[in-house]
Order: sequence, then C-alpha cells, then structure tokens
Amino acid sequence: MRQTEFLLRAIDQGQGRTEADLVLKGGRFLDLVTGDLVASDIAICGDRIVGTFGTYRGQREVDIAGKIVVPGFIDTHFHVESSLMPPQEFERCVLPHGVTTGICDPHEMANVLGIDAFAWFLASAETLAMDLRVQLSSCVPATDHLETSGARIGAADLLPFASHPKVIGLAEFMNFPGVLAGDSGVLEKLAAFQGRHIDGHAPLLRGERLNGYIAAGIRTEHEATTPEEALEKLSKGMTVLIREGSVCKDLHALAPILTERTAPFLAFCTDDRNPLDIAEEGHLDFIIRTAIALGAPPLAAYRAASWSAARAFGLHDRGLVAPGQRADLVVLDDLETCAVSRVFAAGRPVEEALFAGRPSVAPIGRNSVRARTVTAADFAAPGSGPSTPVIGVIPGQIITLRHDLSLPYAGGERQVDLAQDVIKVAVVERHGRTAPGARGIGVAFVKGFGLQRGAIASSVGHDSHNITVVGVDEADMAVAVNRLGEIEGGFVVVEGGRVLAEIALPLAGLMSLMPFDVIRKDLLALRAAAQSLGVVLPEPFLQVAFLPLPVIPHLKITDRGLVDVDRFCLIDP
Amino acid sequence: MRQTEFLLRAIDQGQGRTEADLVLKGGRFLDLVTGDLVASDIAICGDRIVGTFGTYRGQREVDIAGKIVVPGFIDTHFHVESSLMPPQEFERCVLPHGVTTGICDPHEMANVLGIDAFAWFLASAETLAMDLRVQLSSCVPATDHLETSGARIGAADLLPFASHPKVIGLAEFMNFPGVLAGDSGVLEKLAAFQGRHIDGHAPLLRGERLNGYIAAGIRTEHEATTPEEALEKLSKGMTVLIREGSVCKDLHALAPILTERTAPFLAFCTDDRNPLDIAEEGHLDFIIRTAIALGAPPLAAYRAASWSAARAFGLHDRGLVAPGQRADLVVLDDLETCAVSRVFAAGRPVEEALFAGRPSVAPIGRNSVRARTVTAADFAAPGSGPSTPVIGVIPGQIITLRHDLSLPYAGGERQVDLAQDVIKVAVVERHGRTAPGARGIGVAFVKGFGLQRGAIASSVGHDSHNITVVGVDEADMAVAVNRLGEIEGGFVVVEGGRVLAEIALPLAGLMSLMPFDVIRKDLLALRAAAQSLGVVLPEPFLQVAFLPLPVIPHLKITDRGLVDVDRFCLIDP
Repeated sequence: MRQTEFLLRAIDQGQGRTEADLVLKGGRFLDLVTGDLVASDIAICGDRIVGTFGTYRGQREVDIAGKIVVPGFIDTHFHVESSLMPPQEFERCVLPHGVTTGICDPHEMANVLGIDAFAWFLASAETLAMDLRVQLSSCVPATDHLETSGARIGAADLLPFASHPKVIGLAEFMNFPGVLAGDSGVLEKLAAFQGRHIDGHAPLLRGERLNGYIAAGIRTEHEATTPEEALEKLSKGMTVLIREGSVCKDLHALAPILTERTAPFLAFCTDDRNPLDIAEEGHLDFIIRTAIALGAPPLAAYRAASWSAARAFGLHDRGLVAPGQRADLVVLDDLETCAVSRVFAAGRPVEEALFAGRPSVAPIGRNSVRARTVTAADFAAPGSGPSTPVIGVIPGQIITLRHDLSLPYAGGERQVDLAQDVIKVAVVERHGRTAPGARGIGVAFVKGFGLQRGAIASSVGHDSHNITVVGVDEADMAVAVNRLGEIEGGFVVVEGGRVLAEIALPLAGLMSLMPFDVIRKDLLALRAAAQSLGVVLPEPFLQVAFLPLPVIPHLKITDRGLVDVDRFCLIDP
Repeated sequence: MRQTEFLLRAIDQGQGRTEADLVLKGGRFLDLVTGDLVASDIAICGDRIVGTFGTYRGQREVDIAGKIVVPGFIDTHFHVESSLMPPQEFERCVLPHGVTTGICDPHEMANVLGIDAFAWFLASAETLAMDLRVQLSSCVPATDHLETSGARIGAADLLPFASHPKVIGLAEFMNFPGVLAGDSGVLEKLAAFQGRHIDGHAPLLRGERLNGYIAAGIRTEHEATTPEEALEKLSKGMTVLIREGSVCKDLHALAPILTERTAPFLAFCTDDRNPLDIAEEGHLDFIIRTAIALGAPPLAAYRAASWSAARAFGLHDRGLVAPGQRADLVVLDDLETCAVSRVFAAGRPVEEALFAGRPSVAPIGRNSVRARTVTAADFAAPGSGPSTPVIGVIPGQIITLRHDLSLPYAGGERQVDLAQDVIKVAVVERHGRTAPGARGIGVAFVKGFGLQRGAIASSVGHDSHNITVVGVDEADMAVAVNRLGEIEGGFVVVEGGRVLAEIALPLAGLMSLMPFDVIRKDLLALRAAAQSLGVVLPEPFLQVAFLPLPVIPHLKITDRGLVDVDRFCLIDP
C-alpha cells in the first residue's frame, strides 16, 4: 500500500469514519503522561494506533475487559547470541513477554564473522514481528594483541551500515581505556558517529575520567552497579540502562534510584540473558515486576521500560498508548506484577501464526569451528617452579581472582590438584587464524569448578569465541574440543572418552538451529551432566564462556596464554 | 580542525589533563536530572561541555561566583519574520535572553518568495551563534482559492531541503481540515515526512477528529488554549508547546498543567513575538519567570525550556548542563525570576564581538512589493442594500466578529460611519500575480479601530502578505498603499495626504534592514502616530496584519474580497 493510502486509512479510522482494522475493546490503558488508568477502546490501523479515549468499531475486535494495556517494552542493550538462538527464534521467545523493541549488539557473531554478522542480523531483523534494531559493534576484537579473533572491524567497515534504517548507531564502547587514551582507531570510530547514538560501557568509571569518556559523545551506559555510580552517570548526562541479565544483575542495587523524577533518564536492558532464565523468570516483564516489588513507582517503571527508552534512542514513534504511535501493546492481567496476558506487535497479535508466516533466513557461519584436531599432549603444562598462577572463579561473577598456588608436578609438567579444586583450562584457537609458528592453544589452571573427572568445553568464549575447555583429564579435554569441531561448535560434557551431553551451536559456533523448547531441555540435561562430574557452579557454561574475556579483571586465558588483565599483558608461560 | 582532533582535545580536557578552552568557575548549576543545585566548575572545549562536578583549569576562566547556570533555552516554534528582523538581527535581540536554540518556520517569507525563503533562512542560520533550526513550511499558501499569494509550495518543492542538517522536519500543519479530509496534496506532504518531525497546529481540535489528525504522524502542537484541550493533546501523545507571544498568550491558562510529571511532554514557544515585547518583557526568560510565578515548579519550567524541548525535536546534544552536551549555557542571577546575567552559545560568550564577527548574508526579497499604483477611486464600495457585513476586531485577538450593519451610502456607494466606529478596509494584491481580469483589490468595512481620520497600511498581512490598509479617507488610503510600494513594504500612517510615520521592511516586505534599537524606536513613533489619529487598539498593526488571514474565524478580507471563514468561501460583493 502506498504511504498516502495508508495515511488516508489511518486518518479516517482515527476519526471513526470507517471501522478500524483492529480494536481492543473494553479495557483500560496506562496513560504514561498523567499516570491515569484510562477506560477506553484502542483503535489500530495497520501498525499504528489511531484512536484512544473513545469507543471504536473494528473489523476485528478483541475483548480485553478487565485488562490493562501498557506500551510495548524496549530492551535497550543485549546480545541476541546470549540466548543461543538466532533472531527469529529469539523473538518467538521474548515477544510473548512484551518485548516489542530490542536494541541489540551482534558483537559475538561479529567477532567470528566480521561485518557479515551485521548484514545477517539486519536481514533477519527485517523478517521479524518485533522491531529489532542493530547497534554496530564498536570493539571487535575486544583487545588488539591478547587473543586471536575471527575478525577485526574498523571505522571504515562500519560506515556502509550506518544509514540502514534498522541501525541506530554504535554499540557499547567497551574500550574505554582506548577512549581515555585517545587511540587513533577509537577516535576514528567515535568521529564517524558524532551526532548519532553512541552507546557506552564503562564499569566503575567515575570522576574526571568519566567526564572524558562522556565528552566523546557517548550517551548511554549499562555498567553502573551501585546507586552512587548510576547517579553520577545520570547527572553527567547519560541515560542509564539498568541491567538485569543472567550474568550481571544490577536491578536490586539500582531500583532505589528509579523515581518519577529520574525515570525520563532511565531505561532497562538484559545484556546477556539465557534461555533458562527467560523461561523461568521472564524477560523485561520480570525486570518491571521486580523493580516495582523493590519499591519503584509503577509509573516510573513503565516509563523507563518504554517511553524513556524510546526517546533516549531517538525512537519517536513508540512508548505511549496514543494515536500516531506504533501499535506495540502489552495487555496485562495486573499492573504491579506485570502479568502479561497477550501482546500486539505493530498491530499484529503475537501468536504462533505470526511466527509461522515469516520468511526464512538462511543461517550463516556454518562450519566456522575450524580448530585443528587436538590430543591429550596438547594440554600439557610444562613447568616446575614453586608457584603457579591459577584463575579463581567466583560463582555468578565474570571477574576472576588470581591465586598463586603450589601444584604437583611430574615429568616436567604441572598437574591438576583436585584436593585444591584446581583443574586445567585451555583455549584453542578455532578461526583458522593462528599465527604462523604459534601453537594456537593456551593452557593454564583454574580453581573453583568442583569438577572431579572428565571435561567440559564451549565454543562460546567472550568475545573472540575460541574454544574454551576445562578438565581433569587431558584425553577427555581433547575429546571435548574435537567433538565441538564435529558438531560445528556448542557445549559438550565428556567423561572417560564419551560424550555425556552436548548442544550443537552451528551458527558461528554461537547459536542453535533448534527451537527454543529443545534448547531449554538440552541445557537442563547439559547442566545435569556437568553436575554429575562434580561441578558445583550453578551456571558452569556461563563461567567457562567468560574465562577468555581479557578485558575483565583479574586473570584470564586466551589462545595465546594466560592474561594479567590488570597489567593488560600476557604472562610468559 | 578534524573531528578526531577535536575529540582528542575534548577527551583530554574532560579528564583535566590539559586546560579546558573555557571554564565557568565558582558557580552552581541546576542539575535537571536530580533537581539539585550543584556547586561545580563547568569546563568547555570548543562548542561542547566536557566537565562538571569538579574543579577545572581553563585557558580562559570566567568567575561566576554566586550565579546559577541552566541549559540554554529552546523556542520550539516561531516565525523570525514576526520580529520584523532578519535572522542575524533577531539573534542579536534574543540570544541575550538565553535563547540558544530556535526552531523557526519561515512561512511568512515563503508565502512571498517560495522556497527561496528556505534557502535564505538556511544560509542565514549557518552564520549564527545561536542554533537556528528551520522547519519547512507545510501550508503555503494558507488557502488554495481565497487569496493571491506570492508562491505555492508542494511536497516536491519541500523534498530537496529535507536532508539539510538545519532542517528538522515539517512546520506547523495548519491545514487541519485538509488533513481530516485526506486532501491529496496534504497526504503527499505528510507521507514524505513520515518518520521525521511533523509539527502541528490545530486550534480547538478535540475528540475523534484530534485522533485522526495525530494518526497522520503529527507530534507537537502549540494551539491549545485551555488546560482541558492541552491535557487531551498530551494524553494523546503530543508534546504540547505552551505559547506566549505578542498576539496569542496561553501561558496563564496552561501554567497549571506544567508539573514535574508532565514536564517531559511540555515545551515553550513564542510563535509571534514583536520587538517591543522582547525589549520590554523578554523572550523565553519572560515565559519561564512567568510560569514559575504562576506556580510551576522551577525544575519543571527549566526542563520544559530545554531538555524536554530538545528531546521532543530529536536534539540529543543539548538540554542539560553535562559533559557531551552543547555548551549552551545561561548564567542567572536568580533561578525563580530567571534573571539572565550572561549567556554562552556553543561555548562562545554572547557579546557584541560575537555578532560583529559573523559573515554577512545578502538580503533577498528586495522590491517584492509590486502593487499597482492606486487612487482613491480604487477604494470605492459600491452597493446600496439595507445591511453590510462588517469585520469586528477584538483588541488583542486574531479572531474577528461579523457584524451586519446599516451604513450610510451616497452615489451608489457605501460610506464609512465614524459614529459606529466603522471605517474602510482594503487588501491590495502586491505580488504582481493578480489574475487576468481581476481587480486585485478587496474592499470592505471594519469596526473597532477608533480611527478618526487618515489611514494606516501594512505589507505584513498573514499569510499571503498583500497590502492591508484601513482608513477613513480613500485618498489617504491610496497614499498609504502607494507609499508602501515606494519603501518596499512596511508600515505607514497617513493623514491629509502626508506620511506621519513609517517603517520600511524591504526584505520581502516583512523585515527591516535596520538594527533592533532603531526598529523599536520607530515602532513606538508609529504607534503614537496611529494613536494621534484616534486609534484605540494597543497594537493596531498586529490587528491589521491578521485581518487578511482567511483560516481564522469569522470574517476576513483578502485581495479577492470578504471571506466568510466559517463557510470557507468568498462573500459575493
């Protein structure tokens, strides 16, 4: 339909001259301007609300008596890949929770495939019922010299995507030391996006250093973990995106700052949220109900979840239940508990038929796990000194400790020591980009998994997504790594040379081709298998996945070896 | 300077590593996020704030001890032409009042010169210290068939300007009946700007008709005159621009709805504000202090004046005193009375040297007043019926009454009747576009000026800006009209064949080439001259200027004759 024809229909339907395409009848909606609950029909033409504060007739009418309608929720920063699902399956999972707009950063896939990841995410976004916006990943790879990634993305690579209608701007600028130091590659990216949205990522940054970071034109931030840090960022002009994911959980700490006064400057995000949490707790609906339970005024919580988020990212067509706005509507059984009854995305009811009608998107990143075949000998740890640096994991945290321990050794090699809960960890380069003459395998020790036998391995390993494996037995470690090559990446649990459980993630070694329900079931089996080997961590694969991220303190491991993050350098093996 | 070099300087200065370009030292600023008054230096690099919440050293330091800094004010809808000054002189006048951003609609000049007006305003805007944004005039001429304008502007004429960085979108969509009727020319303009900002203008529009208007994608509106109307527009998703100009004054009525809750959805505008009011009362500073005096919380008033206005129009780089934001800063002696001490525009102190340094802009629209030479006989009013429709003016209002009066007549012509305060009014086509065979002069009667002798004439006559003249004596009317041809348009007061006072407005017959102070003095003399002829209206030239606007009820006059606005047609002479 031509735009003028659509407008004519919208104008006529808004005036009640002709039947609306769809009318939600007999309910109330939350007026985010006044805070009132308004008894009114909601008339919809195509993807747009055209009538409120009145009674309408519709070609289709949906009775919502007793329900309360709020604007669709906006997740302002997340990585689809963390759900282990591609965008189409992801929306099947989160749209029923009211998430009608998502602002994602495809930097996991981009670290494997480069800018092809942008093109694929954008193509996927155009098939979706939810509005998936794509921020262009600003820091691929996370570090220049400490790891081998699948791709490097510079300012010139980003520019061809900048004008795509689904692109908002630049994704979380994690390299804040680079900003503060004025690195030339960093400045080029920042300069290219001045006047556009640049999202931030600057954990613990305060004071004059924070001023320098914001002065670069960075507008939003999701790494604040205390009220003091969040309030400083707010008062220095940033919109703070309160994060509650599977790994990082800041909502309890930050809910007290969410008031009616600050709500225009606050939004919500999940960052990384896994399928089990989505299934068991929910998504943004969970954040909203938790915020309200923690004392946030409902008006403030719903503003942050929609209107404030929309305006912070320059989306002027959504965030209110009002004419002219996108018909992104969440029908609730109850406002305070954010009990979602049903959802409309751009005027379309969210139901299985909606998902079935989407054009399919061919997967990319198949056969991307190209690690060489390894043997037990590859995981040898030569050395005989009195003390060995050991990574200490903390349950539920991505920062690690550094222990310096005395380990047993034999035949010139250090050994695992179950008495100290110390096992081996290795990262195997898997992009086929190992530098000539390099081994492409870093080997070290980790404490805290509780693993008693076997090995577990993952091709999800932030942000370069090489293969990370932890194990008691080097032969099992080799089986686990080689198995990931066979199934194109994923998660695997091995004992005695045998695969106990696995999930294949053949899209770039990051995402499944299976439906959400299957992934969820397999994840539970995988977790149980890991626990059967003695693992004590509630989320062992999340912990494995963050062991190689060399920008998070204190001790990490990459395919090049052990990294002292505080000194930002490799530890000589 | 290259953008990367600027960013490097900004990042360094924000961190206090190098001296800032400019530091405002020792004052406090209003934190619009928390509402706190914060004691802090403000560090500025180039046009950008780079540091707050701290102490800074600067290459230039300005002591503002005892003062309070707020973000620069944004006038969200106005016509520069109403100040009788071109943009450069306009900013000299309003910038010292703290108006660092203006969103103007050049539709007065566009009605005379067409799209050349856009090009000229945009070229002028680029020379200014304030940020003048240009909305593209959506309704030129105001009516299709009731008047002769200098230009017609269609959707295709607008598009070449849409991507100019100073263009925000489409200006006030006054033709709301055309929107509601789905006129094809209207739909084309609306369709071309979907997704962009479309500003509204829909006086008294309520209920389902308002829904239809907003459904077309129109986001902002400044014609609400009662709290009920404004709240309906707000709750239907519009940002309401509270207007206080020289002609229309809505602030007293609407101040009660400006609360902390609604402030994110409200902004201020002046629409039409004349030089005398700017000089005597102020500009947005006047609106802010009046709003606060009327009971609006200061935080709400200052948010509406800056942050809310900025975000409503998609300006993400201003509206807070914070790093990363434009250094548009107003230094106040007092917050509640908005007593402006000094102003910084994009980091530059507002002082005479700033204005002196601007490149000059060649005037356009010279010799645009091309009315034919008239004589007393042109103002004859043939007719002899028992009753004559007479325009009734109401002091300070642009709507008019319709009186049907019995007038004296002689020789087949109706006569003025001073006993009833009824004099003649005529509109003379002045664009050189009178249709073949047409007279190009409409003649009728008007009641309420108090004029006892002579005539007063104006080339400012909304929106087509033909010459409007009112007078007791037809010969004086002819002298006044012909004089406007000689001085390229303006205002003139004539008695006994002699010009008592005049102001030349040679830019399109709308704007002066004189400095603000001269215009102001001449306006006072002009007003005194009109009063010397008996005029009782406080603003006779404003009232004259709105007599030809055929979209404002109830009885108006154009070059084609008397217009019954309620029936939207010409009254047969």
